[in-house]
Amino acid sequence: MKIVDVANFSTRRDVETGTETQRAAVLEILQAVKQEGDVAVRRFTEQFDRIQLTEMRVTEEEFKEALRNIAPEVRDAIREAAANIRDYHSRQIRQSWMTTRDSGTMLGQLIRPLQRVGLYVPGGTAAYPSSVLMNAIPAQVAGVEEIAMVTPPGKDGKVNPGVLVAAYEVGVNEIYKVGGAQAIAALTYGTETLKPVDKIVGPGNIYVALAKREVFGLVDIDMVAGPSEIVVLADSTANPAYVAADLLSQAEHDVMASAVLVTTCRELAQAVQQEVEAQVAVLPRKEIAQASIRDYGVICVVNSMEQGLDVVNRLAPEHLELMVEEPMAYVGQIKNAGAIFLGPYSSEPVGDYFAGTNHVLPTNGTARFSSPLNVDDFLKKSSLISYSRQDLLAHGQKIMSLARQEGLEAHARAIQIRLENERK
Amino acid sequence: MKIVDVANFSTRRDVETGTETQRAAVLEILQAVKQEGDVAVRRFTEQFDRIQLTEMRVTEEEFKEALRNIAPEVRDAIREAAANIRDYHSRQIRQSWMTTRDSGTMLGQLIRPLQRVGLYVPGGTAAYPSSVLMNAIPAQVAGVEEIAMVTPPGKDGKVNPGVLVAAYEVGVNEIYKVGGAQAIAALTYGTETLKPVDKIVGPGNIYVALAKREVFGLVDIDMVAGPSEIVVLADSTANPAYVAADLLSQAEHDVMASAVLVTTCRELAQAVQQEVEAQVAVLPRKEIAQASIRDYGVICVVNSMEQGLDVVNRLAPEHLELMVEEPMAYVGQIKNAGAIFLGPYSSEPVGDYFAGTNHVLPTNGTARFSSPLNVDDFLKKSSLISYSRQDLLAHGQKIMSLARQEGLEAHARAIQIRLENERK
Repeated sequence: MKIVDVANFSTRRDVETGTETQRAAVLEILQAVKQEGDVAVRRFTEQFDRIQLTEMRVTEEEFKEALRNIAPEVRDAIREAAANIRDYHSRQIRQSWMTTRDSGTMLGQLIRPLQRVGLYVPGGTAAYPSSVLMNAIPAQVAGVEEIAMVTPPGKDGKVNPGVLVAAYEVGVNEIYKVGGAQAIAALTYGTETLKPVDKIVGPGNIYVALAKREVFGLVDIDMVAGPSEIVVLADSTANPAYVAADLLSQAEHDVMASAVLVTTCRELAQAVQQEVEAQVAVLPRKEIAQASIRDYGVICVVNSMEQGLDVVNRLAPEHLELMVEEPMAYVGQIKNAGAIFLGPYSSEPVGDYFAGTNHVLPTNGTARFSSPLNVDDFLKKSSLISYSRQDLLAHGQKIMSLARQEGLEAHARAIQIRLENERK
Repeated sequence: MKIVDVANFSTRRDVETGTETQRAAVLEILQAVKQEGDVAVRRFTEQFDRIQLTEMRVTEEEFKEALRNIAPEVRDAIREAAANIRDYHSRQIRQSWMTTRDSGTMLGQLIRPLQRVGLYVPGGTAAYPSSVLMNAIPAQVAGVEEIAMVTPPGKDGKVNPGVLVAAYEVGVNEIYKVGGAQAIAALTYGTETLKPVDKIVGPGNIYVALAKREVFGLVDIDMVAGPSEIVVLADSTANPAYVAADLLSQAEHDVMASAVLVTTCRELAQAVQQEVEAQVAVLPRKEIAQASIRDYGVICVVNSMEQGLDVVNRLAPEHLELMVEEPMAYVGQIKNAGAIFLGPYSSEPVGDYFAGTNHVLPTNGTARFSSPLNVDDFLKKSSLISYSRQDLLAHGQKIMSLARQEGLEAHARAIQIRLENERK
């Protein structure tokens, strides 16, 4: 892992935007499912997943089988994690509100849940029970009544049992063994089997990402997820073995994952460099972590915490660990970060799995303007206006002059007709 | 305006998604500005707006000229409208929060404003002072420190005076005479003159819309706006002249605007039909309104309020007027609408200009999942995790088993290394 002194490196990766060929394929799949429904979904599942779907929806029996095959301590851990996640997100609940005036006018804002949400869960090696919890629970806390999950069938035609157990634990039982762009299409347009949704969340491969971009506007989507990233900001009080382990926990995700240490302490930099080498050598899947460290890993030595904070804010990391003395003192100066972990015991996997905060976080610099997945993502607002006769008579003239300033005469006349009528 | 009895019409318009030629042109403009900065911006301004920009930024003198040339009552109305909008939006302010446990763990959610926002204001006939207020004020209430406005120069090389006065009234003084895709590019990539932003809001033509879609991810954007729409739900107590005037206030916006009456009263339907004909005949810009009414206007007679509410929810209108007896009684059954206007004095222009609610609203059915522009649109959240040693020792094993269930060994080891070290 290279050590640099200059702070002007960037962690922005050119995230895959897909080729024109991939986009054309996605458009074709979307159109086919829109026109042909289930028939097209089955066709694409056979083509891409090599599975002939008999029953598209996961059955009671399949849930039972997954529950039989999960280790009890894993199931218990899932249940406890779910409770923590639910507790944290329940503190985000919003109330509809209004404000009144003596004149009789009332203005308000209704805040209500979306009606139906689609949750995409990848298959294969990225079939994560934790993803189910992190995507479904905020929606449930928001009050979303219907959650439909889609996930590609495995080689044996089945869904990862951990995923099914997680879904079962949180009461998500509408699951379809469909993946890829065809799943996004089915959720957007609806088929004979699958009722359409208002919003689709959850990560997927490039075809899923392209499909989500295409249907955005017909349905809502979450931000398109990029490769993982962690920045550790550390001083001399940090434990280099802990730092190295946390960097590697990100690096193991993806060859394009980015693991960065920013530190005021050169000795720490060197110790972490050595620890990373020693720890990665004994990791399974070490090829992924090694490639990530090699291509996107950086150790940056800065002159001061102030300079370090500048670097952090410029990087706008997905995950930020503050392994410094009195980390709380610096929180006010962190402008851009998805999730901020304080102190030596707040290892990123604590947040990924268990503490309660969401692990769906803004990547690739989007922490400048995006947020962790949260309850607001499953709510929508409506404005409420009950304007009184008194206020219309008092202010109607002003409204008309504003409308005429903009050349919108019919807007002015809608007010005028009332003023004339009410003053008779 | 046709009267229909069946409730299965749709108001979804195939909103312009742009041709491949337009998309290619936009990509070229984005790339040119990214590479060449101001030089490219000036070149495109000359090409598309036929203006040779000397000073790109609006000067103190230009503000003064606009202030001299605005009618005092219009300026006063703008000021009063701004105060109402600020009051309404100030009630949306959010607090960062945290929760603690006896174990010493603290979790939280920081809620902070975006740093810098770009506001696109169209020129020409759609240069609306009200747009300035509706886009800038929520950002200011959120605490956004820097707002940069871009707006295409008019034929005389100047900016609409009403727009400048509105900006002046709310303290937005960083305005650039640049429009189109080149303005979006400048806001995204930055140029020598224009510092880049974190989010771009505001409507524009197809090139602006396409450019915003392309840069989404580098910056945040608001939802792409479609043509205006209004649904009036009315019973026999409604005044047909008021209904007609409100329908026309939408129809005058755009030939693709949609104005719909849903009513339980056939007599009202017929009276409104007549009123619309009579009122539109004496409108300036009547051709636009007439085309809109002809192509997208509908009067739908339903059997009951229940059926009417069903239709409304399916339409998911941008603006909904409830001109019925006791409108408040039905609010709980309205599931999908951008802004809901209650009673005979809540004419839509009241909300467009003055009452305080935002006039940037979800169109084309997106009220199913989108909201009026609001303070949340200019905030971002960060999760905060301070996990205690006690909790890590108590729960570390569960976290490790969850990580191993997902095949993420380095995640497990980041926990394990701490458990082993802390238990020595």
